[in-house]
Amino acid sequence: MKSEHKALMKARKRNIRLTVAYDGTAYHGFQRQTPPVVAVQNVLEEKLAIVFGDNIELAASGRTDAGVHAHGQVVNFFTDGTIPVDRVCRAMNSILPEDIVVTEAAEADRDFSALHSAKRKTYIYRILTGEVPCPFERNTAWYIRRKMDIDAMKSVLSQLIGTHDYSAFRAAGGAPMSPVRTMDIADIEQEGRIIRMTFRADGFLYHMVRNIVGTVVDVGLGVKTPEQFGEILASLDRQRASATAPACGLYLECVEY
Amino acid sequence: MKSEHKALMKARKRNIRLTVAYDGTAYHGFQRQTPPVVAVQNVLEEKLAIVFGDNIELAASGRTDAGVHAHGQVVNFFTDGTIPVDRVCRAMNSILPEDIVVTEAAEADRDFSALHSAKRKTYIYRILTGEVPCPFERNTAWYIRRKMDIDAMKSVLSQLIGTHDYSAFRAAGGAPMSPVRTMDIADIEQEGRIIRMTFRADGFLYHMVRNIVGTVVDVGLGVKTPEQFGEILASLDRQRASATAPACGLYLECVEY
Repeated sequence: MKSEHKALMKARKRNIRLTVAYDGTAYHGFQRQTPPVVAVQNVLEEKLAIVFGDNIELAASGRTDAGVHAHGQVVNFFTDGTIPVDRVCRAMNSILPEDIVVTEAAEADRDFSALHSAKRKTYIYRILTGEVPCPFERNTAWYIRRKMDIDAMKSVLSQLIGTHDYSAFRAAGGAPMSPVRTMDIADIEQEGRIIRMTFRADGFLYHMVRNIVGTVVDVGLGVKTPEQFGEILASLDRQRASATAPACGLYLECVEY
Repeated sequence: MKSEHKALMKARKRNIRLTVAYDGTAYHGFQRQTPPVVAVQNVLEEKLAIVFGDNIELAASGRTDAGVHAHGQVVNFFTDGTIPVDRVCRAMNSILPEDIVVTEAAEADRDFSALHSAKRKTYIYRILTGEVPCPFERNTAWYIRRKMDIDAMKSVLSQLIGTHDYSAFRAAGGAPMSPVRTMDIADIEQEGRIIRMTFRADGFLYHMVRNIVGTVVDVGLGVKTPEQFGEILASLDRQRASATAPACGLYLECVEY
């Protein structure tokens, strides 16, 4: 049944690719949930059905958890709807809630899959520092009052670059897949009160970025040493890494195909 | 009665000055409202009463309207509470909702009044431009899709500098006061997709910044000419200015004493 349904969907004329930005604060993650629980996917599919006059089932580059944001989530879906692709952004944004925005729409090749064709993903993690929090960053950054050693954090981030088994930073509950990934960017920069970490890899394990950030922050605070960080990575043991960093600081920045 | 009450308040030992930042989205403006309507002042006074163990009536540098934000609102109040001033920020921020933050607290001279001692105020107005809106700016900037002529906007803003009767930009409903003010900064700058206007004056009339911004934007869009802008300012006639810009783009940036 499932493969028949998939074939039916693929028999449709067009494969549409969208880039979507969202403030994840109000949603139970990206992946479709059973109402009354609302995920970003529920809202997108409901509005796409209106714009395309077609029931829509989209595939995304991956899930994001409750409270996690996106600047550049990518999705695709098959449709017989006839709306020209250059009108899709405005049509969608006029009916979407303001915390979800379609930023790009394009016709894709028939074999393009937002999930399976993804080559690299970039995540950003934002931390707000300083004596007092900021009312405008309450849902969009992790507030840490204590001073952190940015140089120490930078040095341990560089240990992540390359091809590694990241099991030490993998949470239980993700899809079963190889824990080996290749990361080519793991960097940190500070601008004013905001510390911004950037991670780019060919894929990420469940909670991997947030578990890395939690552990890197512990190095910045002096709770863990840079040497311990290397030992944790090598141990492949999730029990040794620090607590998962809050969802509100995490952004799926972009997906490359 | 009122002056007796005021004398009673002033008989208290300490005059405390606070700087407060807030995201105004969820509030019916700054000024105290009758519950269940909630203004920023209601929340501040309720939490100050807990921290100072005293009923608190604060005075602010001025009101802000529903949906308007502040980085540097200033308030003061008299109290017999004994908490050391250097503990006030953390004590307040630990019990305030996250959209209101006390950023500074200080002992003030007995004759300091956040309202009457104010010498100059700075307001910022933020506009988001570009083909599509941004989910993270939905409550914090006015989104305008059409291209604007920033140079034209800059030139008409400069017409506002100096001492003028700003009646053309004054809304009905404010406190009765002279419409003459002295403005020394009226500028615009663009950084990425954000256009930022800055206004500094010895005081502002009711809705003055938002009415100015609405009219300046019409110049940027070519709906009004720079010459018409000058005529509107000189006319003293509110009917000739453009519609009031949305509250969500406006920030009380700081107050100088």
